[in-house]
Amino acid sequence: MTVSQVSSDIGRPYEECGVFGVWGAPDAAALAALGLHALQHRGQEAAGIVSHDRERFYQHKGLGLVGEVFGDQRTIATLPGDAAIAHNRYATTGATLLRNVQPLYADFEFGGLAVAHNGNLTNAATLRQALVRRGCLFQSTTDTEVFVHLIAISLYANVLDRLIDAVKQVKGAYSLIALTEDGMVGLRDPLGVRPLILGRMPGNGAWVFASETCALDIIGAEFVRDVEPGEIVVINAGGLRSIKPFAESGSRFCVFEYIYFARPDSVLEGHPVYQARKQIGIELARASAVDADVVVPVPDSGVPSAMGYAAESGIPFELGIIRNHYVGRTFIEPTDQIRNLGVRMKHSANRAVLEGQRVILVDDSIVRGTTSRKIVDMVRAAGAREVHMRISSPPTIHPCFYGIDTPEESKLLAATHSMEQMRELIGVDSLAFISFDGLYRALGYENRGAAQGHYCDACFTGDYPISLVDRDGALVA
Amino acid sequence: MTVSQVSSDIGRPYEECGVFGVWGAPDAAALAALGLHALQHRGQEAAGIVSHDRERFYQHKGLGLVGEVFGDQRTIATLPGDAAIAHNRYATTGATLLRNVQPLYADFEFGGLAVAHNGNLTNAATLRQALVRRGCLFQSTTDTEVFVHLIAISLYANVLDRLIDAVKQVKGAYSLIALTEDGMVGLRDPLGVRPLILGRMPGNGAWVFASETCALDIIGAEFVRDVEPGEIVVINAGGLRSIKPFAESGSRFCVFEYIYFARPDSVLEGHPVYQARKQIGIELARASAVDADVVVPVPDSGVPSAMGYAAESGIPFELGIIRNHYVGRTFIEPTDQIRNLGVRMKHSANRAVLEGQRVILVDDSIVRGTTSRKIVDMVRAAGAREVHMRISSPPTIHPCFYGIDTPEESKLLAATHSMEQMRELIGVDSLAFISFDGLYRALGYENRGAAQGHYCDACFTGDYPISLVDRDGALVA
Amino acid sequence: MTVSQVSSDIGRPYEECGVFGVWGAPDAAALAALGLHALQHRGQEAAGIVSHDRERFYQHKGLGLVGEVFGDQRTIATLPGDAAIAHNRYATTGATLLRNVQPLYADFEFGGLAVAHNGNLTNAATLRQALVRRGCLFQSTTDTEVFVHLIAISLYANVLDRLIDAVKQVKGAYSLIALTEDGMVGLRDPLGVRPLILGRMPGNGAWVFASETCALDIIGAEFVRDVEPGEIVVINAGGLRSIKPFAESGSRFCVFEYIYFARPDSVLEGHPVYQARKQIGIELARASAVDADVVVPVPDSGVPSAMGYAAESGIPFELGIIRNHYVGRTFIEPTDQIRNLGVRMKHSANRAVLEGQRVILVDDSIVRGTTSRKIVDMVRAAGAREVHMRISSPPTIHPCFYGIDTPEESKLLAATHSMEQMRELIGVDSLAFISFDGLYRALGYENRGAAQGHYCDACFTGDYPISLVDRDGALVA
Amino acid sequence: MTVSQVSSDIGRPYEECGVFGVWGAPDAAALAALGLHALQHRGQEAAGIVSHDRERFYQHKGLGLVGEVFGDQRTIATLPGDAAIAHNRYATTGATLLRNVQPLYADFEFGGLAVAHNGNLTNAATLRQALVRRGCLFQSTTDTEVFVHLIAISLYANVLDRLIDAVKQVKGAYSLIALTEDGMVGLRDPLGVRPLILGRMPGNGAWVFASETCALDIIGAEFVRDVEPGEIVVINAGGLRSIKPFAESGSRFCVFEYIYFARPDSVLEGHPVYQARKQIGIELARASAVDADVVVPVPDSGVPSAMGYAAESGIPFELGIIRNHYVGRTFIEPTDQIRNLGVRMKHSANRAVLEGQRVILVDDSIVRGTTSRKIVDMVRAAGAREVHMRISSPPTIHPCFYGIDTPEESKLLAATHSMEQMRELIGVDSLAFISFDGLYRALGYENRGAAQGHYCDACFTGDYPISLVDRDGALVA
Repeated sequence: MTVSQVSSDIGRPYEECGVFGVWGAPDAAALAALGLHALQHRGQEAAGIVSHDRERFYQHKGLGLVGEVFGDQRTIATLPGDAAIAHNRYATTGATLLRNVQPLYADFEFGGLAVAHNGNLTNAATLRQALVRRGCLFQSTTDTEVFVHLIAISLYANVLDRLIDAVKQVKGAYSLIALTEDGMVGLRDPLGVRPLILGRMPGNGAWVFASETCALDIIGAEFVRDVEPGEIVVINAGGLRSIKPFAESGSRFCVFEYIYFARPDSVLEGHPVYQARKQIGIELARASAVDADVVVPVPDSGVPSAMGYAAESGIPFELGIIRNHYVGRTFIEPTDQIRNLGVRMKHSANRAVLEGQRVILVDDSIVRGTTSRKIVDMVRAAGAREVHMRISSPPTIHPCFYGIDTPEESKLLAATHSMEQMRELIGVDSLAFISFDGLYRALGYENRGAAQGHYCDACFTGDYPISLVDRDGALVA
Repeated sequence: MTVSQVSSDIGRPYEECGVFGVWGAPDAAALAALGLHALQHRGQEAAGIVSHDRERFYQHKGLGLVGEVFGDQRTIATLPGDAAIAHNRYATTGATLLRNVQPLYADFEFGGLAVAHNGNLTNAATLRQALVRRGCLFQSTTDTEVFVHLIAISLYANVLDRLIDAVKQVKGAYSLIALTEDGMVGLRDPLGVRPLILGRMPGNGAWVFASETCALDIIGAEFVRDVEPGEIVVINAGGLRSIKPFAESGSRFCVFEYIYFARPDSVLEGHPVYQARKQIGIELARASAVDADVVVPVPDSGVPSAMGYAAESGIPFELGIIRNHYVGRTFIEPTDQIRNLGVRMKHSANRAVLEGQRVILVDDSIVRGTTSRKIVDMVRAAGAREVHMRISSPPTIHPCFYGIDTPEESKLLAATHSMEQMRELIGVDSLAFISFDGLYRALGYENRGAAQGHYCDACFTGDYPISLVDRDGALVA
Repeated sequence: MTVSQVSSDIGRPYEECGVFGVWGAPDAAALAALGLHALQHRGQEAAGIVSHDRERFYQHKGLGLVGEVFGDQRTIATLPGDAAIAHNRYATTGATLLRNVQPLYADFEFGGLAVAHNGNLTNAATLRQALVRRGCLFQSTTDTEVFVHLIAISLYANVLDRLIDAVKQVKGAYSLIALTEDGMVGLRDPLGVRPLILGRMPGNGAWVFASETCALDIIGAEFVRDVEPGEIVVINAGGLRSIKPFAESGSRFCVFEYIYFARPDSVLEGHPVYQARKQIGIELARASAVDADVVVPVPDSGVPSAMGYAAESGIPFELGIIRNHYVGRTFIEPTDQIRNLGVRMKHSANRAVLEGQRVILVDDSIVRGTTSRKIVDMVRAAGAREVHMRISSPPTIHPCFYGIDTPEESKLLAATHSMEQMRELIGVDSLAFISFDGLYRALGYENRGAAQGHYCDACFTGDYPISLVDRDGALVA
Repeated sequence: MTVSQVSSDIGRPYEECGVFGVWGAPDAAALAALGLHALQHRGQEAAGIVSHDRERFYQHKGLGLVGEVFGDQRTIATLPGDAAIAHNRYATTGATLLRNVQPLYADFEFGGLAVAHNGNLTNAATLRQALVRRGCLFQSTTDTEVFVHLIAISLYANVLDRLIDAVKQVKGAYSLIALTEDGMVGLRDPLGVRPLILGRMPGNGAWVFASETCALDIIGAEFVRDVEPGEIVVINAGGLRSIKPFAESGSRFCVFEYIYFARPDSVLEGHPVYQARKQIGIELARASAVDADVVVPVPDSGVPSAMGYAAESGIPFELGIIRNHYVGRTFIEPTDQIRNLGVRMKHSANRAVLEGQRVILVDDSIVRGTTSRKIVDMVRAAGAREVHMRISSPPTIHPCFYGIDTPEESKLLAATHSMEQMRELIGVDSLAFISFDGLYRALGYENRGAAQGHYCDACFTGDYPISLVDRDGALVA
């Protein structure tokens, strides 16, 4: 028995998510479950796998962590076949419906097709409206279903031409993988904002798509190359084929993947994430030195930058904040009294390290500022004498429309406060962010100018490389 | 967490089912749950309600009995509004998927619409194929979704015209109710094969649609009239309106509703079902008398006919078979040893009544014959000296394509065996069925000829009044 | 995850229930599940089975119907062995806890023992208090656990002597079955108030205990004999042994089993229940004749008496009230508005039979009177011109302390109202109950005097044959 | 519906677990849930809370993480009162039964009592056998129930005297908290092997017991003092009272709490755990230096020691192994093929840090050696040129009988292999453990001799300070 509220509401769909696909390996669904597990940091809300055994498609989806949805081998046994695509869903606000969980599967005139994507379309609402007007019935509120309907109504004869027809009509920052009855497809948007890599298993030569390299590592697959911006990679019995259907493409990879989103042991476009973060810490220490006793990371994403900061500054690195990893999705603060305790379910202060010390806290970003304020209060309550905050990203002053969950501009602390106001609000003795030049130096460029055109940093600059159709309306060409 | 196998298989969809709708009453969903409960005999597999509170639609569906799905008032509380439509689903073979449970809801260009129907379309597969070719994506395997897509792609401007556009394209035997943002619609197919009645609540004047009058009784609503064959009844703020969109209509009401399907306390087209069944028993006794000691019904549907038989013949009526009403959906016979016991989960013999007696068993129909054989064996094992079987329907020799669950012709005992072969197979001393004339006399006609054109009795005669498009292919007009 | 409120409250434990045991048959648990299914009318709240495979005990219990708890063969597969005892629990008010579901199993010094009983101890609270004072920890609120602790602390060496030691200390009306590592035991209290029968399977000679014969019929077992009042029947590898440990025993079988509780196809102490009920109807017709058009039973238990009444009076028997058997445990009336509709979830009126008629309603008993009133109202609303009520039991004026669920005296309509007051309250034109002499004539005695000492009819007479220790306090010997 | 196999098996009960109690605070159960959350590292299998509202006891228990069992405020709302005790259960092998989840609650002659304990009794089986012989019925397989029965059968008049009577009869290493109708009790075994601390909430003065200080921090309570070895602390309306019922007591605190079990931000007996671990790393570096490029911890428990090692050696500290914290309880490796991939669900190598490097791995202990081998293989596969392993505990050569989950001696790598054999098996270039003197220096003593008698280190030395009654049999005094 299941309750499902009917809802026409389509929220702002932040679909960072993780995608994974494998073609040509026995136990494909089991490999997919492992791949999803390695990509769990990209989405904890739900998970799904569609497999194909050269005869039929099989599907299982569920709300929760990969281990909860796919941890039981009896579930995996319901997903036979040597091809599978898989998806991790990110926890956005509001009720999650199972029908929104990807991959989406549909029976078309030409046969079955499963699709999963990571990212966000900027003309999804516009397209959706046009499709509904044409008589298309939407079953979910995901952008993925826009792809599915575009494919369904395309007049092209074969599935690949229909897929190309569809992706030419969408605008956005996304990677997409699809599974048909005889092949697997992986593609990135023309600017390659969201990651997608290609790998291969050493023994059986099975091909693998994944959002990050860590998903190759867990199954022992080898990294082959990044799927290129605007490239469609088609894998089938005839081998691998590359198609570049877009007139224009470029490279505007999301710089925030380096700062926060990707796993530290992944390698993005040739750069190890861990080293990049550490290097940002080094740049921060050079530009924003302060006299202190300890460098303390806000775990987990602040750790490598704090290590870099400590190494460069010579100030000892200490675990002054302990993270409780058992925090589940469902812990609800029960009463006002408890809420007023200012309980930190995720973090606790390590008094032995903090008491009486001048502390440099290193964190990855300040969004609304509320979490930072709570952490600073906690560190002070544990006896810190001074608290200095160093942030491994530039100030976040614009929302992301390309798949990263950020609030609207009015709720971004840095968009509405001066540096001094922020410092005061958060309650620190000093506050500094990495500079643009520092950030890009950490990624191997001389300065921001040299990196120009390689990255999307719209959340820091407002320079949106893909038109925001739904927000701004379609422009006359 | 939910498992759903992807399946393109579309079985032969027997959707007897029960439908209910109410418009203009507070607690509409609660009334709908009661209505479904009264119609539970029409479908025990699943139940669903969609309500509307003049602002939004709400929906709850579940597998199981109405009391299991809607028995909890907290569930009803999630379905606010003064309008609701509801559906009971009949248990067909194969796995039941929640997405097949009606009413189906969809967001259209013109707004939301919920639809539920009872019956079967004879050109569903043909239409479905055409719709898929056009780019429509089907989410369920129900005929109802054919209506939904036809409505979605219709070029008419308002919902009612689109609905008419849709029903004009379908062939079949069905009743349908729909709920829009500002009204409720009820309609019967042009020949009125499946029932649909209109009622009204005395206090608040709320309008009610239901498959049978027993659903009016439970909520204290008054019977207004049958919806007419081919009639569309539209209820909205402006009151009730009747539309007759079909060029031709007639009346071929399903005679099997009288014999078996409807509840004995319902009144169908002016005839009380209980009296009709009793009268059939009287006709049977007149035509097929036999010397015996007791008349024993096969409960529950055989009871009124057995009472009629006993009254007419003067042979005592006795409850020689006890029915265990606690039989659930899930009792699985565990081992061969148990299976060989010939266990009858539903029926047991009342030896005190049967031992040493000459028994007349009265049942409603013989389909495959296996159940009859088991019951006769049980009655003999309890000591019956003779067993005579009387059946309150003519021999079933053709499958129904209009919504009643019957196996294909090759599995119908009467289609492949002579009367004497049947008697022997079932193991009775004599066997007789009601005659066509007897059946229609029981319904108030002089003979079958006089009832000609008023009823569908295709399962007994092979005279199919609605073309079987999917089976035969579309004919050239 | 399970919620269990800690509760020290021990309600008045009405444990009508059904018990079943089988020893020496493969698939013992499957047979036990079938036996419980046949005894489902004795308790619908919960069910449990303990099996033994000559090495270990296995147990499964659950809330709900037998088909819900044991319908899945995978559950039965967790209960191996050729011996099993089983229990159906009756729905009493208040929350049901799984730990109260029988059979109770415990590890003793001498090994494991499972116990299930049907009935009620009249000194359970007194014994419980003494046991707690001695240091016994109770885990449930069932009387069965009193047996278990008495066995645990007994100083006798073997399990049978301990069991005898225990039953000698309890007072009450009960049947009990127990399963040890090498045998099965069945016993009835010294007055044999509650039923227990012995049967045997034809092929393998397996022994069976059951509350009623209908549980033998379902598995094809043969009736051997009633376990006698005060008899302990021990079954083990050495065969069957009978022990009579009580100095005094007698026979005070519960007459209400005939009137209402047992299944109509069961045979109690040699009397078929169906015939007894029909005969009561005949006696009622003789003593309380009234001019009328139809005799209508309140289904299901009133049916045979109504048939007897109709046969004797010559007034036609008609099904004027239809019972909806799909009523589940969980249907909650959602709102006041609905409640005020006077909805009858279980019964509906068959207007075709009632309208304009003078109706004799036959029911089994009047307890509080509220249900009778509702039914009479419903029958009148369906157009009955006169309503006469005939009851197949004497007026219920005392509570039962021996296992039948009756409210306290102040809530028994007949205990506080005159016959005329009752008639008026229930709203009938005439009201009559079976006389004591009529009741016992129906059971084959000349009059009540001749049946004296054979039956317990305390609920009608207040003549309690077993001392009510908990209610009255222990008496000085 | 619930399946529960009957089992007499009593496994070796390792009950490290975490306990928490609060007395005199509104929302006591909510505070208890937070306390359990902070102590989640001590047991992830199950959690339970019993509360008391000065009138009744309330209880909720469940399998899973605290957030899963108590994350919903509606659950907390079922646990009213200003007093509560709570328990986290550690995952031991074998099926977990809900009836084993603590606190255990029982109704005694004197009223209700709830008990929870952390640790292990060494004469539990011996006592249990004697209690069963006396007629006590056990419902669980936990040691806690031994306490409960001893209290039940004690002849003392009040609950405190009975509790003292009970604890005097048990041998073992445990901390226990109990909740009665008018007070809360906390106690440690005579040698104080397992931790228990006393805290107090600043505003309302509520008293708190907890296994570790981190559970005080999360609710803002202040540390008061450790409960002393052999001390019973009684809290009731009259305030706090200390009782020392044992003739002899001492101090043999579990040294493994420092090394591995406690949370790094806790303070044990005045020593911050984080500092102790870091200091062990410093001692390790001093005693077992090796030329290398990076110091890499095996996360999470190896991190502080690795930091100490790095700081002392001057070799850079790097996160060469990434831990995936999303590993749930249920991830089952599905097939042999997958198993052969040697998948590491919990850890992955950070190639950017390891490739071509000479790596010093720091871990907390080697038990069976299989995990170490896998991690070393993974580090080598990521390109490490040399791998040196440093362990922050002495070799584990004896099982713990006092509550830490260790395998039997034959499965302890260090008990059956020489240092060189171990090095080879694990596949490292060098292997070193902390020395006893180094360990105790890190805890502030001059050497092991100086710490003699303050700690239990039986797992490293075989010097068991509490007699192992169940293992060895009771000795003649």
